[in-house]
Amino acid sequence: MNGARSLVETLLKSGVDTCFANPGTSEMHFVAALDQVPGMHCVLGLQENVVTGMADGYWRMARKPACTLLHCGPGLGNGWTNLHNARRARSGIVNIVGDQATYHRPHDPPLTADTEGIARAVSAWTRTTTRAADVGRDAAEAVRAARMHPGQVATLVLPSDASWDEGGVVAGQLAVPAPQPVDSHAIDTVARVLREHRNVLILLACEAVGDEGQALAWRIAQATGAKLMAEFVNARVARGRGRIPLTRVPYKGELAREALAPYGHIVLVGAKPPVGFFAYPGQPNVHYAPGTQFHVLSRPEQDGVQALRMLADALHAPQADAPDAGPRPEATTGEPTPEKLALTLAAVMPDNAIVSDESVSYGRDFYRHTHAAPAHDWLHLAGGAIGDGMPVATGAALGARKQRRVISMQADGAGMYTVQSLWTQARERLPCTTVVISNRKYSILVGEYAGVGAKPGATAMNMLDLGNPDLDWVKLAGGMGVEAARATTMEQCADLMRTSFAREGPFLVELVV
Amino acid sequence: MNGARSLVETLLKSGVDTCFANPGTSEMHFVAALDQVPGMHCVLGLQENVVTGMADGYWRMARKPACTLLHCGPGLGNGWTNLHNARRARSGIVNIVGDQATYHRPHDPPLTADTEGIARAVSAWTRTTTRAADVGRDAAEAVRAARMHPGQVATLVLPSDASWDEGGVVAGQLAVPAPQPVDSHAIDTVARVLREHRNVLILLACEAVGDEGQALAWRIAQATGAKLMAEFVNARVARGRGRIPLTRVPYKGELAREALAPYGHIVLVGAKPPVGFFAYPGQPNVHYAPGTQFHVLSRPEQDGVQALRMLADALHAPQADAPDAGPRPEATTGEPTPEKLALTLAAVMPDNAIVSDESVSYGRDFYRHTHAAPAHDWLHLAGGAIGDGMPVATGAALGARKQRRVISMQADGAGMYTVQSLWTQARERLPCTTVVISNRKYSILVGEYAGVGAKPGATAMNMLDLGNPDLDWVKLAGGMGVEAARATTMEQCADLMRTSFAREGPFLVELVV
Repeated sequence: MNGARSLVETLLKSGVDTCFANPGTSEMHFVAALDQVPGMHCVLGLQENVVTGMADGYWRMARKPACTLLHCGPGLGNGWTNLHNARRARSGIVNIVGDQATYHRPHDPPLTADTEGIARAVSAWTRTTTRAADVGRDAAEAVRAARMHPGQVATLVLPSDASWDEGGVVAGQLAVPAPQPVDSHAIDTVARVLREHRNVLILLACEAVGDEGQALAWRIAQATGAKLMAEFVNARVARGRGRIPLTRVPYKGELAREALAPYGHIVLVGAKPPVGFFAYPGQPNVHYAPGTQFHVLSRPEQDGVQALRMLADALHAPQADAPDAGPRPEATTGEPTPEKLALTLAAVMPDNAIVSDESVSYGRDFYRHTHAAPAHDWLHLAGGAIGDGMPVATGAALGARKQRRVISMQADGAGMYTVQSLWTQARERLPCTTVVISNRKYSILVGEYAGVGAKPGATAMNMLDLGNPDLDWVKLAGGMGVEAARATTMEQCADLMRTSFAREGPFLVELVV
Repeated sequence: MNGARSLVETLLKSGVDTCFANPGTSEMHFVAALDQVPGMHCVLGLQENVVTGMADGYWRMARKPACTLLHCGPGLGNGWTNLHNARRARSGIVNIVGDQATYHRPHDPPLTADTEGIARAVSAWTRTTTRAADVGRDAAEAVRAARMHPGQVATLVLPSDASWDEGGVVAGQLAVPAPQPVDSHAIDTVARVLREHRNVLILLACEAVGDEGQALAWRIAQATGAKLMAEFVNARVARGRGRIPLTRVPYKGELAREALAPYGHIVLVGAKPPVGFFAYPGQPNVHYAPGTQFHVLSRPEQDGVQALRMLADALHAPQADAPDAGPRPEATTGEPTPEKLALTLAAVMPDNAIVSDESVSYGRDFYRHTHAAPAHDWLHLAGGAIGDGMPVATGAALGARKQRRVISMQADGAGMYTVQSLWTQARERLPCTTVVISNRKYSILVGEYAGVGAKPGATAMNMLDLGNPDLDWVKLAGGMGVEAARATTMEQCADLMRTSFAREGPFLVELVV
């Protein structure tokens, strides 16, 4: 068999059965092999940042890697930024990047680029396979690298002759090493800190913000009086009824510093000492108080849930139920506001929904109003690079086998980055509801400009507003086969959201705010 | 003054007065400085690959660099692929990439990435400036690097504290070194080859495919019997009435080999020995005949027009007018075909138009039918990475100071890569006509798949067709404020194209083929 076929068979044996793709000429043998070997679900994205973002969302829900199929260095380049976001989400992804044949590359034809260079700039594992005989082995290693706890970006560059040459060898699935063991000394130290101090914050991240991690952390908090918080961005956090009222470290420096000021000790569970997204002149660039002592319970490479379990046991922390979330909010009326949109979301979302949150500045306070919604998962923009909200939603719908409604809370400026996602949602008939928050400006930047000290002038606003001309999201969605409607009041928004949940496929609500 | 202000003033002094932008938080001081210092025209793109592609198109027409303003590594990542295309077009561009403050970067906040790593993978010149006092000097050097003959991508990474700190020093414009001198020995050698051999091809690239280079090459060809050809892709080639009938090396291997078979000698004027875009199993990967002798008249770093002038003088080649192009084609009727579309383009295009050609497979033969059109410039997809047709058209309209109609011949699949370009065309009221060739598939790949040996099966076609659901380009354009209409016949297409030329702003024709 040729290298391409050994690649497809190896991926399937390794448990990779979903391929997000935008192939080109150098990938045609792989595409042909996909035709010959059944079992791979191939999903086309109309631009590669959609492709890589879908793979990120898929991992977050399925907890297993998909592969991507990208065309040469420039195809990888187009998808680079959502790989950055995936890296920050610690999502496992196997990128297959077809490239020039080994003997053709020295001629430097137009599509030749520094493929390995940009791959290494975002991948934990990068390899170029130059012989058909090695393709299977390297693919199996790529999958293992992607699945290495907690999840990594792995990139396999495949010159086209390694695909088409005969001599391919299928490799079996490689065992993935267990997470690095929890450090019992760390458990003892943190237990002592919790017993001896009343000003302790336990800062959760990675898998510790899931169902089980939260429940364990709650037991510990109830037993010791420690407070709990999550990082500002989380790849996937369990929320809603039955879960604990877990707040995040605020985005804004002054709010974050105020929230963290009470704590002399911060216990890190897969988390990092909280710092600003950016530094600002004359302001502290870290969010914790001077003199704060940090205690690492677990690093991301360790199993944070196991660490919390060991800590709860060491503390003999009794079972503790999450507190009642209070009454479910009711849908709101009148002119849209961030609070009303959050309350409406909590009021109408179906059971077991997934929220893909790229609401940017508009949605910073959504959390406090959505705790009493039915149980759901919430996905953040983990790497801060706008343009992953809709691709992640698209991939998450597939990662959840189309069994859960995915609701994108989508800022308009960020949405335009990867607007092509809507087409894939229509093509795959995915249960995706997109609520575009149409404020017709880069609102976060208007706020940031104010931080520089003045009101934006005409030149600056020319780079910050999106209102000339207005984007018409109903037409944009319709142009890609997605049913859509516009809302200017919260009543309309709630009605349209409910309508969308009854659809089998995607729906877009443009909420003009 | 702060570093940001010294940057803006230095850019203006260095002749850079256009900024294609999608800024973020770390660029706010630069944005504020643009407000304070008049003279920079700032153009917003809704995704960075639009931004960088516009800068490419701007250079191709204006022959001076614009700057881009990009946000951190991920902003550069989003624009990386059209920088690849610009690098292949040898366009001069100054990228300004804002980044984390020097003292904040070690904290590794979410948007931190290997900015220099991906910059180096596509730039001829990369520098990170760490002190406000150095910003002006480094900006001037970046502009010089961008203007180095024939044009280069230069990337200046600017940590935000270098922008906001006081101590900025404005730098004056730096002299750009002349192109490397033409080698008189090469002139003598090529002159002798042309005198002694009848099987000589002169292969033109870079500035040699402009007006003056073509005229000189024609004189040489008429005097010696040599044949002329251009590379398959050219950043900007002068075409139409008054220009010579210059064909390109064909894209397809068998056609290219057939076209080049007669030549025992190929003279390279800024060109490279012609090879395939890709290698294919069992086929030659170079297009020239075995034993072909190459003679380098000029490298891209030299002035190819001067080299041709010296060669024409050495050969005492007399003046020779371009042959009459024959009658101008008439607009066609009935069902669209590639030939009919080319003839209609030639029939209706206004004087002095610019054609941005991302027609991919549909347009491979457009050339032969458009020679008798009025004089125009034709811009190719120089780096082979789809998604630069509409951004290049947008930037070209600005580079030509809105004085020339720009006609995009745009394949649908490629068009979706950077569809956001349309919004900037509407916002800037640019004289852009986009003809979308809507065949609802990646037609080039269906052809390439056939080369692998079989008809695509269901899995493969799922990655090659765009017809489920159909894209509605009229809605997409309308969603971004661009007037649009659909044509299914050539009569309708011609009417709509003529209509568009009477508009001040942009217009899109969806030609269903």
